Amino acid sequence: MTHKIAILGASGYTGAELVRLIATHPNMDIVALSADRKAGMEMAAVFPHLRHLDLPTLCKIDEIDFDAVDLCFCALPHATSQKVIKALPGNVKVIDLSADFRIRDPEEYAKWYGGEHDAIELQKEAVYGLTEFYRDEIKNARLVAGTGCNAATGQYILRPLISAGVIDFDHIILDLKCGVSGAGRSLKENLLHAELSEGYHAYAIGGTHRHLGEFDQEFSLLAGRDVRIQFTPHLVPANRGILATAYVHGDAQAVHDTLAAAYADEPFVEVLPLGEAPSTKHVRASNFCHLGVVADRIEGRAIVVAALDNLTKGSSGQALQNANLMLGEEETTGLMLAPVFP
Amino acid sequence: MTHKIAILGASGYTGAELVRLIATHPNMDIVALSADRKAGMEMAAVFPHLRHLDLPTLCKIDEIDFDAVDLCFCALPHATSQKVIKALPGNVKVIDLSADFRIRDPEEYAKWYGGEHDAIELQKEAVYGLTEFYRDEIKNARLVAGTGCNAATGQYILRPLISAGVIDFDHIILDLKCGVSGAGRSLKENLLHAELSEGYHAYAIGGTHRHLGEFDQEFSLLAGRDVRIQFTPHLVPANRGILATAYVHGDAQAVHDTLAAAYADEPFVEVLPLGEAPSTKHVRASNFCHLGVVADRIEGRAIVVAALDNLTKGSSGQALQNANLMLGEEETTGLMLAPVFP
Amino acid sequence: MTHKIAILGASGYTGAELVRLIATHPNMDIVALSADRKAGMEMAAVFPHLRHLDLPTLCKIDEIDFDAVDLCFCALPHATSQKVIKALPGNVKVIDLSADFRIRDPEEYAKWYGGEHDAIELQKEAVYGLTEFYRDEIKNARLVAGTGCNAATGQYILRPLISAGVIDFDHIILDLKCGVSGAGRSLKENLLHAELSEGYHAYAIGGTHRHLGEFDQEFSLLAGRDVRIQFTPHLVPANRGILATAYVHGDAQAVHDTLAAAYADEPFVEVLPLGEAPSTKHVRASNFCHLGVVADRIEGRAIVVAALDNLTKGSSGQALQNANLMLGEEETTGLMLAPVFP
Amino acid sequence: MTHKIAILGASGYTGAELVRLIATHPNMDIVALSADRKAGMEMAAVFPHLRHLDLPTLCKIDEIDFDAVDLCFCALPHATSQKVIKALPGNVKVIDLSADFRIRDPEEYAKWYGGEHDAIELQKEAVYGLTEFYRDEIKNARLVAGTGCNAATGQYILRPLISAGVIDFDHIILDLKCGVSGAGRSLKENLLHAELSEGYHAYAIGGTHRHLGEFDQEFSLLAGRDVRIQFTPHLVPANRGILATAYVHGDAQAVHDTLAAAYADEPFVEVLPLGEAPSTKHVRASNFCHLGVVADRIEGRAIVVAALDNLTKGSSGQALQNANLMLGEEETTGLMLAPVFP
Repeated sequence: MTHKIAILGASGYTGAELVRLIATHPNMDIVALSADRKAGMEMAAVFPHLRHLDLPTLCKIDEIDFDAVDLCFCALPHATSQKVIKALPGNVKVIDLSADFRIRDPEEYAKWYGGEHDAIELQKEAVYGLTEFYRDEIKNARLVAGTGCNAATGQYILRPLISAGVIDFDHIILDLKCGVSGAGRSLKENLLHAELSEGYHAYAIGGTHRHLGEFDQEFSLLAGRDVRIQFTPHLVPANRGILATAYVHGDAQAVHDTLAAAYADEPFVEVLPLGEAPSTKHVRASNFCHLGVVADRIEGRAIVVAALDNLTKGSSGQALQNANLMLGEEETTGLMLAPVFP
Repeated sequence: MTHKIAILGASGYTGAELVRLIATHPNMDIVALSADRKAGMEMAAVFPHLRHLDLPTLCKIDEIDFDAVDLCFCALPHATSQKVIKALPGNVKVIDLSADFRIRDPEEYAKWYGGEHDAIELQKEAVYGLTEFYRDEIKNARLVAGTGCNAATGQYILRPLISAGVIDFDHIILDLKCGVSGAGRSLKENLLHAELSEGYHAYAIGGTHRHLGEFDQEFSLLAGRDVRIQFTPHLVPANRGILATAYVHGDAQAVHDTLAAAYADEPFVEVLPLGEAPSTKHVRASNFCHLGVVADRIEGRAIVVAALDNLTKGSSGQALQNANLMLGEEETTGLMLAPVFP
Repeated sequence: MTHKIAILGASGYTGAELVRLIATHPNMDIVALSADRKAGMEMAAVFPHLRHLDLPTLCKIDEIDFDAVDLCFCALPHATSQKVIKALPGNVKVIDLSADFRIRDPEEYAKWYGGEHDAIELQKEAVYGLTEFYRDEIKNARLVAGTGCNAATGQYILRPLISAGVIDFDHIILDLKCGVSGAGRSLKENLLHAELSEGYHAYAIGGTHRHLGEFDQEFSLLAGRDVRIQFTPHLVPANRGILATAYVHGDAQAVHDTLAAAYADEPFVEVLPLGEAPSTKHVRASNFCHLGVVADRIEGRAIVVAALDNLTKGSSGQALQNANLMLGEEETTGLMLAPVFP
Repeated sequence: MTHKIAILGASGYTGAELVRLIATHPNMDIVALSADRKAGMEMAAVFPHLRHLDLPTLCKIDEIDFDAVDLCFCALPHATSQKVIKALPGNVKVIDLSADFRIRDPEEYAKWYGGEHDAIELQKEAVYGLTEFYRDEIKNARLVAGTGCNAATGQYILRPLISAGVIDFDHIILDLKCGVSGAGRSLKENLLHAELSEGYHAYAIGGTHRHLGEFDQEFSLLAGRDVRIQFTPHLVPANRGILATAYVHGDAQAVHDTLAAAYADEPFVEVLPLGEAPSTKHVRASNFCHLGVVADRIEGRAIVVAALDNLTKGSSGQALQNANLMLGEEETTGLMLAPVFP
């Protein structure tokens, strides 16, 4: 059975990544692609790398016949997303890739995103889209909130460790390095090749990055108490990839055992042997996440490193994984593409 | 029916690219991977990006049971390849990715590769692996010689134009820019990141690059007379991709018409509208080749630009396309992966 | 004696490069920096790499006291530049880095830049700023027009060859590869890191690039007849550098002899031994231009390759070299910085 | 007065960087360049970017007349360096860029570098080359040990904080990101462009990196007790630059005040306003170090980020700064080159 798919906001990177992945999915058919300012254009004009595909012309959202849509990926900007999703007919399953439905508590949402939520009922209903930890809820959800790409990476490291209580909750530092596509296809000076290439720097330092909202919500829930981590993202001169280095207080062997057990049956999360560490280079353009644990020379401290591709496992690949679950497909369908190296 | 596949020389980039592509091929099973100096190692140790796959341990060639192999990809160095292939049992179909069987004339071979051929009979039998132009021969071949990656790119531009006689055979210039993976996983100073990044230069200037042997052979055959083009490759700071800019004497519209007609039914070659030109960025990690034609301000002169991924369409993707034909599979199976962008 | 310098349009890359170079010039003092939209900001806020310097606050042009200025570099956008320069007091020496005064013939100017010139008298008076060929005129000029960066590179190859008549004027092809800083600090999608990195393509193909106006003007003047070359620029994923590959009909030894003789006494132009070719990597961030000549395998044809840094020798370095001449300084002062490698 | 300079190991990146810097130093003259395996070659053949300079031919060390040398930079591999320096005549001042004389305690040296020291007397005499903190000793030293590039970066952050006691000595984490030139011009697979570009990863995780020997030595000395920090270096796809992110327990304002006071009069260390953070992009190819302090959302914790160029301030620039002191020159001579951007 072929599922009819719409992608709203198809002119951005996560939209294009969805099309790339769905292109070889055997049971999905893209029936609508929207892009407000580029409505009327062919997708091949916006993304020439998709030229070989037979895709619908870009349209405005209100031109889409949602009766003929089974599932809708929403890759719109934050704040816009909630307005659009609120107006969708109730029969359409929705995966939102924006930040709009990640935070369940309206007050927390307001704190991190600076305003009242426009669709509070949906906010409560939405299921958090970190597949490996919300699998059952996702299967039955109508609305799934894709996670932040940094938030996903940090959680692959920390969720099992917090759940198992093998680390000190008051000393968790996450130093994260991400490629530039996470910032989207937006025209900002610091995203220019001439400004970024051959340079790297930290940003949103000191606890101001919005993905902390997700960390706080999820980790506190798991721990049964408030957990506040330190988190510093860095922009590095690469297009895809997130490398997260976590500094934790805990026994490295216990940390490794916990992660190995947690992900033993997961198709996309690979835990390396103790003492080895991953590289973003080895997960590029794939839905895999590699995790490594190394003991520090200081007893009782460990370093855990995670690598994934922000556009795939961190965003559009995760979304497709969730879509498979929501549509009754095998979770891995269309997602077993090997990483591209070199 | 599942075809049993061996890959010789699996520790290089073209070997890894074959594994990446075959990983999602529904009807191929990799039964042997050889790597002389790395025999005994797991593939995941040599290429951690393939860690999720269940692959045979790397072995030496003489440890492979070729009775249990339907088709063998040979990704060995030039000169080694001919010795190894000569010794393979006659029932095994072979696709050679080295330069050893590209040149049919032993004297021409000696001129470009500096020595006598070790398997002259096979050299005569081998079919040149440019799929779009040798499709029928490839279907029935036992031994197919994969083309040079630069040679493939240039031929996609020039073969139809020479066949149709729409350009002047004495004024053909091919200025080519290629990424570094074409040079393989070899430890050379000029391939270091510190030496290559942020720099670009021409090499093998003036008609000394070995791929000219292929151009001379093929173009002269098509033209029915000697054709000698000018060819300058350049190394640019990127990992994948070949961009070839051809300067020809001929009418741009006729050139475009000729190319459009030649590739109208080809699944992997896309001719852009007249006046547009391709980018390597839009074919990365895919088996597609994009072609563009632009008229010069000087009447009677045209510029034709081709873009492809040297490791995929220029090498391992081409090899898989040929393997499909040799094994009775649909030509496109496993190869419709969309390019990775950004 | 210290010369008082103003830089108009100091918030762009050529402005910043001027400041970088003048920073270690012993006899120049920057007294004014303008940037219309960023007036009031400190230069360190716009360009943090200049933070260690004691520089004037950015201001609007009309806030500058030009009586206290000896020489003014004008790094403004095309078309704006002519209006501003027209209004400057006659005592101030001016070096314009825009395209406004490069074309002497108003009709040719209109053809390439699409409009009437606003300062036709100045257009006639302006001296073309290719130092090695207009040295004497520059010494006595009040207004010097900096050349296009691509135009400079092509002329270093072709001027001596055309003057000496050692090449065929009807078969000149210039295939040029340039880094992204040549496009300036402008917010365009194709200049984003995610769009440019790992990709390369041709643009302005077929004789539409404006720098052809300079080539036509200068080469026709030298040849005493119309000369029209073919010229295709390519954008490559690097920040600085132009590599120009010229295909000419002529004897390689004669071509090499001619270039070697032409540049024998030049401090910044280095002709490599016959058969060698340069790399942009070896001239980065310097005022040097490297030239190489190689014979093609086809008799009577030669390839000439030039490498320079578009922001230095192609623009701001050239401007400083000219400023030295106009102010009676040694031509090389402040410009002997060695290239930065790696 | 012109000082006569020799550089041993001139065919590596730090050797080339020394030549680049000395090229515009008014009072230094390079009289000898050694490179064991490349003896007899011209420097321009090894480093074409230095082609414009009039340099001595590369020679073997024993061909150098050390009577005619005032100061010798030793850019040889670890372990080789101590043997060579031991044999130099006592009148020659020496700056060693290797690790051989950084560790004063022979046991600590053996622990980190795995063997007995060959020149224990010199090891005791050598002055640690972190200019800002050993200025007086360096002025009078005969042998100065250049610091590790990572070690320098970390110390610029942490020395003043440890001296002032404004941070908790038991909770110091240094997460460091460095470009590839720090690994030298060595032929290793992971340094290839194809392997590094578009990827990043941690290495020497868990307290195994040798530069920890320097941190332990220096920080413990300052603190008057054992201090052991956590340190994880990462390799990022860039050629030059170190970005170090330090996580400390301490008041951000006090941390900032301490750093601002410590570096108030330093010509090369710039402390940004509280809340701002530096980028490697803004110090490239220069001798500057930028420092930024940001308060974490968790009270009592601060993040400090340092950026410098590993080849300049982290190695050859530091060496030249020290050479100036040892030779009675102004400390900044030849080193005020502005960073190269973009």
